[in-house]
Amino acid sequence: MDNRVRDRKLRDKIVSAEEAANLIHDGMVVGMSGFTRAGEAMAVPLALAERAKKEPFRITLMTGASLGNDLDKTLAEAHVLSRRMPFQVDPVLRSEINAGEVMFTDQHLSQTVELLRTRQIPPVQVAVIEAVAVLEHGGIVPTTSVGNSASFAILADKVIVEVNLHHPETLIGLHDVFIPAQRPSRTPIPVVAPESRVGLPYIPIPPEKIAAIVITDKQDSEAKVQPPDAETRAIAGHLMEFLKHEVKQGRLTNSLLPLQAGIGAIANAVMNGFLDSPFENLKMYSEVLQDSTFELFDAGKLAFASGSSITLSNAMYKKVFADLDRYKSRLILRPQEVSNHPEVVRRLGTIGINTALEFDIYGNINSTHVGGTHMMNGIGGSGDFARNGFLSVFVTKSLAKGGAISSVVPMVSHVDHTEHDVSVVVTDVGLADLRGLAPRERARQIIDHCVHPIYREKLNDYFERACHRGGHTPHVMEEAFSWHTNLKQYGSMMPEARAAAE
Amino acid sequence: MDNRVRDRKLRDKIVSAEEAANLIHDGMVVGMSGFTRAGEAMAVPLALAERAKKEPFRITLMTGASLGNDLDKTLAEAHVLSRRMPFQVDPVLRSEINAGEVMFTDQHLSQTVELLRTRQIPPVQVAVIEAVAVLEHGGIVPTTSVGNSASFAILADKVIVEVNLHHPETLIGLHDVFIPAQRPSRTPIPVVAPESRVGLPYIPIPPEKIAAIVITDKQDSEAKVQPPDAETRAIAGHLMEFLKHEVKQGRLTNSLLPLQAGIGAIANAVMNGFLDSPFENLKMYSEVLQDSTFELFDAGKLAFASGSSITLSNAMYKKVFADLDRYKSRLILRPQEVSNHPEVVRRLGTIGINTALEFDIYGNINSTHVGGTHMMNGIGGSGDFARNGFLSVFVTKSLAKGGAISSVVPMVSHVDHTEHDVSVVVTDVGLADLRGLAPRERARQIIDHCVHPIYREKLNDYFERACHRGGHTPHVMEEAFSWHTNLKQYGSMMPEARAAAE
Repeated sequence: MDNRVRDRKLRDKIVSAEEAANLIHDGMVVGMSGFTRAGEAMAVPLALAERAKKEPFRITLMTGASLGNDLDKTLAEAHVLSRRMPFQVDPVLRSEINAGEVMFTDQHLSQTVELLRTRQIPPVQVAVIEAVAVLEHGGIVPTTSVGNSASFAILADKVIVEVNLHHPETLIGLHDVFIPAQRPSRTPIPVVAPESRVGLPYIPIPPEKIAAIVITDKQDSEAKVQPPDAETRAIAGHLMEFLKHEVKQGRLTNSLLPLQAGIGAIANAVMNGFLDSPFENLKMYSEVLQDSTFELFDAGKLAFASGSSITLSNAMYKKVFADLDRYKSRLILRPQEVSNHPEVVRRLGTIGINTALEFDIYGNINSTHVGGTHMMNGIGGSGDFARNGFLSVFVTKSLAKGGAISSVVPMVSHVDHTEHDVSVVVTDVGLADLRGLAPRERARQIIDHCVHPIYREKLNDYFERACHRGGHTPHVMEEAFSWHTNLKQYGSMMPEARAAAE
Repeated sequence: MDNRVRDRKLRDKIVSAEEAANLIHDGMVVGMSGFTRAGEAMAVPLALAERAKKEPFRITLMTGASLGNDLDKTLAEAHVLSRRMPFQVDPVLRSEINAGEVMFTDQHLSQTVELLRTRQIPPVQVAVIEAVAVLEHGGIVPTTSVGNSASFAILADKVIVEVNLHHPETLIGLHDVFIPAQRPSRTPIPVVAPESRVGLPYIPIPPEKIAAIVITDKQDSEAKVQPPDAETRAIAGHLMEFLKHEVKQGRLTNSLLPLQAGIGAIANAVMNGFLDSPFENLKMYSEVLQDSTFELFDAGKLAFASGSSITLSNAMYKKVFADLDRYKSRLILRPQEVSNHPEVVRRLGTIGINTALEFDIYGNINSTHVGGTHMMNGIGGSGDFARNGFLSVFVTKSLAKGGAISSVVPMVSHVDHTEHDVSVVVTDVGLADLRGLAPRERARQIIDHCVHPIYREKLNDYFERACHRGGHTPHVMEEAFSWHTNLKQYGSMMPEARAAAE
């Protein structure tokens, strides 16, 4: 324990999770660690959920991004959450959000703490941060994610630290905590490469702000790594061909530019695609580092990775953390404000690869809303990278639900990324390079290269009738969502085909 | 002439506009100066249009933003334009764009030259730049706008300079030309305040790249400054009240943060609103400086203004340019890449005030497309500021066409700015502060405060029926555009009221 809570006086603050949770009251705004199911505090939120069963109360919960260990589920089931931001992935919480029971604020991941710092959203009263250790001077060393933890701790009135003995002390030194100054005296963020170290390896707070310390021994949730399938392999293949062409044209070197990849099966499969690619000496400047990052390290493809969290399968966790010193000199974990910062993203020129739920013939992207109304997860960091990076790529399978859904539609039912922010779209069918094109030209590329053949004729028909009506971005407005309403009413975006088949 | 073309050898390159225009051939990509109808080259484009009448040819034309002196009209009528980016405001060109005859690429204004520099769009072959003077070493001093002129000239194979004797030499020293380095050796842009001077007062190019010089004597187009009316005054009033409240809450000081305002009557009226406000020592970090900027200087309200162009009424032009030295120490004109750069915009924390065509109950903004299909002008720089600034405000009158159109609709027919990028919306009816709210809460604010009373009940009815169906962002998808289709079919978004009245 001496190494984990290094200030003797702070050891007096070690309490049970229940006692610590008692610092949190009805109506409070609470900021918790946790980003892409990594590094979340667990004991205190579980104690909150237990208490709420006897004594109902509700809080506003802010995190970095998603929480692991079913915490959002447990908290949602206990009806502890009145408001949640900036991201979530839990089915139970999602259903409460879609029922209008939990107010969900879906934010660009770089922006939450900026809004807090400028007091444009209600202040965090209590921060609950998972740590590897609390240093002599009160500095908190985060675990597998930095997320928004640093600013939550700095801005909160009180800080509860969960010291998690499960994570090795070798994590100390991995983090790089840089906090932009208040305006108007803010200066540039000095990150000029993924490997730039510009801050402190801990969260600097005065020790007296630490109100309670809880000792835990918990594992991060295992990342569900789905193996590549035929479609995701095809998506990766199209993207690798495109990038090779860019190198051939002299627009990129063989080391490309820093890579960012969203979370999930498709993004992970795409990153796997780099294993067999001719690219060398790659770097990542991303949010989340998944199994693929370490596979690329081991294959000698990746030179450096900067992220805000590490989310791994159990097997990969064991491998990496047993030998962390081997990777440590090639890894940095940063606050998500810095990993996703428009300043740094534009300067480095990231290649952003993010997942779409659906996209339309003009290149608008829906990342969040099923059927235009029901929240899936949230926009996450995709907007930070898509707007400001060098290249903005969106990937999705061309079909869903056995062909009942085409991911390429006449008009997306919700817009998260506009036509202005999308360079390239890829499905298993193919890739459309939209750079510099006008909307009608984009439609031609997308229909010819991305839509599944079973929907191509139908989409061509829509586009032709729309062009007949005219406009820079032609649409048949009264039919723009007909594919979505068909799906809802008949269970398929192409009910006529189903009817004909029956 | 000695002062205007200072290198004697370059004086040998002085030719007629027709001769210079002969450097431009069919199929070429041409980059011309001009931003918000200020500082455009005129003689060469007019010569191009004349030549095309006898000998048809077409080019891709890139500019900073809109061109004055009806140049887009003249070029469009002569069918010289096959492709146009990144912005325009001309009715004739617009109709060719909407007919699919001219391919228009509507871009964030900060991004065009970044795409050029990284060769993601076809390279500029000839640049045509209006200048006050060409310096000894070949440096070009722009006139009333910098726009994309610097990068066009640096990246082009050949440069044609139009030296415009109409503008006084006192303009020399006003500009600050900073060009970001190529990646991966790019470092921070050192702008830390609107008044930071970080570059050169001219465009640095080797004199041998100057292929022709044309001497002109032309005036910028007069800015059409519409006086504030009851609605725009009401919009300005609501915004001033909001900003006063922010100061009271301690979120802003009495000097606010650097102001950005879009072009046009509403934005100008809002800026006029600062004349009678309690705010002092204001600064602008904007794209275009209009009459209101100089009225604020004269009233002692404004301490500094950074922009990419100066667009004035004739009366204000005469006043300002007769006495430019009085204003010069408080003015900088920058490349639009820097005036709109996400890095600088986030660092300084701009208050962005831009105009919407329409917005919806969830705070999504349509800035560009009439009826979802027909391009008006383009997104301009609004996205650079809305995504990355401190506060993103969108303004519009609540009604258009004598009440046949409500600017607040169930769902916008085209999305330029998503719900994630909009802090505050304002109409003459009132202001809705959307910060930190979930979609259903935003709808309540917008319906209660922004929609015109004649449409309020109808919008409430839509929202209630949508909520009944559920979802994070409730909609009745098959009715989402019914207001727009009503308008098209019956000439009003509320045909039932019209029918009842008849």
